[in-house]
Amino acid sequence: MNFKIEEYISSKRQLVDKRLEKIFQAGNKKQSKLKESIRYSLLASGKRLRPVLCLASCETFGGRTSQALPVACAIEMIHTYSLIHDDLPSMDNDNLRRGVPTNHKVFGESAAILAGDALLTDSFNLIIKEGIKKEISSDKICELIATLSNAAGSAGMVEGQAIDLEFGSKKNVSPDDLKKLHSLKTGALISASAVSGAVVAGAKKDEIKHLKKFSDSIGLAFQIKDDLIDDTGAGKTGKSGGSDKKNKKSTYLTVLGEEKSLKLIDNLTTKSNGYLDRIDRDTSILKELANYLGKRNR
Amino acid sequence: MNFKIEEYISSKRQLVDKRLEKIFQAGNKKQSKLKESIRYSLLASGKRLRPVLCLASCETFGGRTSQALPVACAIEMIHTYSLIHDDLPSMDNDNLRRGVPTNHKVFGESAAILAGDALLTDSFNLIIKEGIKKEISSDKICELIATLSNAAGSAGMVEGQAIDLEFGSKKNVSPDDLKKLHSLKTGALISASAVSGAVVAGAKKDEIKHLKKFSDSIGLAFQIKDDLIDDTGAGKTGKSGGSDKKNKKSTYLTVLGEEKSLKLIDNLTTKSNGYLDRIDRDTSILKELANYLGKRNR
Repeated sequence: MNFKIEEYISSKRQLVDKRLEKIFQAGNKKQSKLKESIRYSLLASGKRLRPVLCLASCETFGGRTSQALPVACAIEMIHTYSLIHDDLPSMDNDNLRRGVPTNHKVFGESAAILAGDALLTDSFNLIIKEGIKKEISSDKICELIATLSNAAGSAGMVEGQAIDLEFGSKKNVSPDDLKKLHSLKTGALISASAVSGAVVAGAKKDEIKHLKKFSDSIGLAFQIKDDLIDDTGAGKTGKSGGSDKKNKKSTYLTVLGEEKSLKLIDNLTTKSNGYLDRIDRDTSILKELANYLGKRNR
Repeated sequence: MNFKIEEYISSKRQLVDKRLEKIFQAGNKKQSKLKESIRYSLLASGKRLRPVLCLASCETFGGRTSQALPVACAIEMIHTYSLIHDDLPSMDNDNLRRGVPTNHKVFGESAAILAGDALLTDSFNLIIKEGIKKEISSDKICELIATLSNAAGSAGMVEGQAIDLEFGSKKNVSPDDLKKLHSLKTGALISASAVSGAVVAGAKKDEIKHLKKFSDSIGLAFQIKDDLIDDTGAGKTGKSGGSDKKNKKSTYLTVLGEEKSLKLIDNLTTKSNGYLDRIDRDTSILKELANYLGKRNR
């Protein structure tokens, strides 16, 4: 087989980058500080995992990439908003993100908060405006926004970040606590990304059920891998290396150790593949993507 | 005529308060810090102008209050998020809001940012979930979320706050600058509130056009009145009295003076009534509401 997952990811990432650049193009007239700070964080080179997952999922269920692309871009906007806010001095107080100084380091705290607020709000606007243009039905648009806002709000990502701050440098965080934290903070939006692609494609309810379980597993595996990379990988993630260590945060590395963490990633990847086997489609791209995420080192 | 606008506002406000209390009820189990901080700011006694305007507009165009109520609640959630973020130390650094200490004073800065993030995200989720339950069509739900996200995002409220911070204590702010600032920061969401009620009711396009002009006028009048009250009214607005003065902000009072500001409010109110006259409906409630807003002293 000639299919190379790295090339697939790279080509989809380029699609996303190009579209984001178009949506937030600088224009001729002097741009506002708000737009400048949005562009700074959104157009910085990111892995674009979530939008790629959305596009791969749409493709798997026979949908049109042109319809999923604005949704994928909206997802990256939501993700970027969460990074900008998480990096703030009152939150994780990080100096480096995606290989460059964090938004508030460049534009100041208030501008960073507003850039995040705008990205979040505009993401829903984009789904509706572009969705209607691309002839996604209103029913599907409602399902997309319900899925994403549920994953991003107080039932998902925001609650995850709140728990993360509450745990702080707490010592005795159990593996279950950690799992809950990450399934909310990271897993919910990763899962919603896969589901969104399937919704655009018009996948059946039971297909989406299996897909959700698949993406819950890879979301967790992704986070464990992130913890391992963060510990050793100054510069590799584009974040300040060892930032969790600095903040004395409990991570899978500190709670389970490296060996058990790697084993857990393997188990979760195998499990995720199993869920895909229940779907009567060619799910090879999603499988390759899951395997890639478990093995990446950046 | 026996109709009393104060009683009308009070009864609608109670509807909104009761529904918000139900949506965010404390429940039996220990509530998370996130939920506690959301409840603190959202359920603090507010004027509820925006949701009341939404309900009054829905009524004017023959719609059902039960359908508009969740939308009205979502609008108050968006408004509350904006207050929490605007009050932050890196923004206006305010200590008092709605008569009680600001969110970050009680729960800390990170919790306040997250409470705002959650309120904003959850507001869109609420419109979809409750909208579907109340049998609002998907087309209308899309129009509602497009209207509100457009008013709240980088084309509206967030850009308004960014301009406000940029002006800072700048001296030579022109009346036109001030108008632009406030039409984005305050006007956009007030206007979207009125339009949302009309969308729920299924008002015609040209009716919504006139309604938008009406609400643009009262939005501006409302802000001018706010500036006047802020200057003199320690305690009356529930904000720290003279907070604009403290921050050396340009206001309608400092730019136009009291007499001209009062005259402008009168003109805007008269103008707003004129727009309503072009609508072939009984618009008396909206007129009363506009007159009330121009005359209020808190």
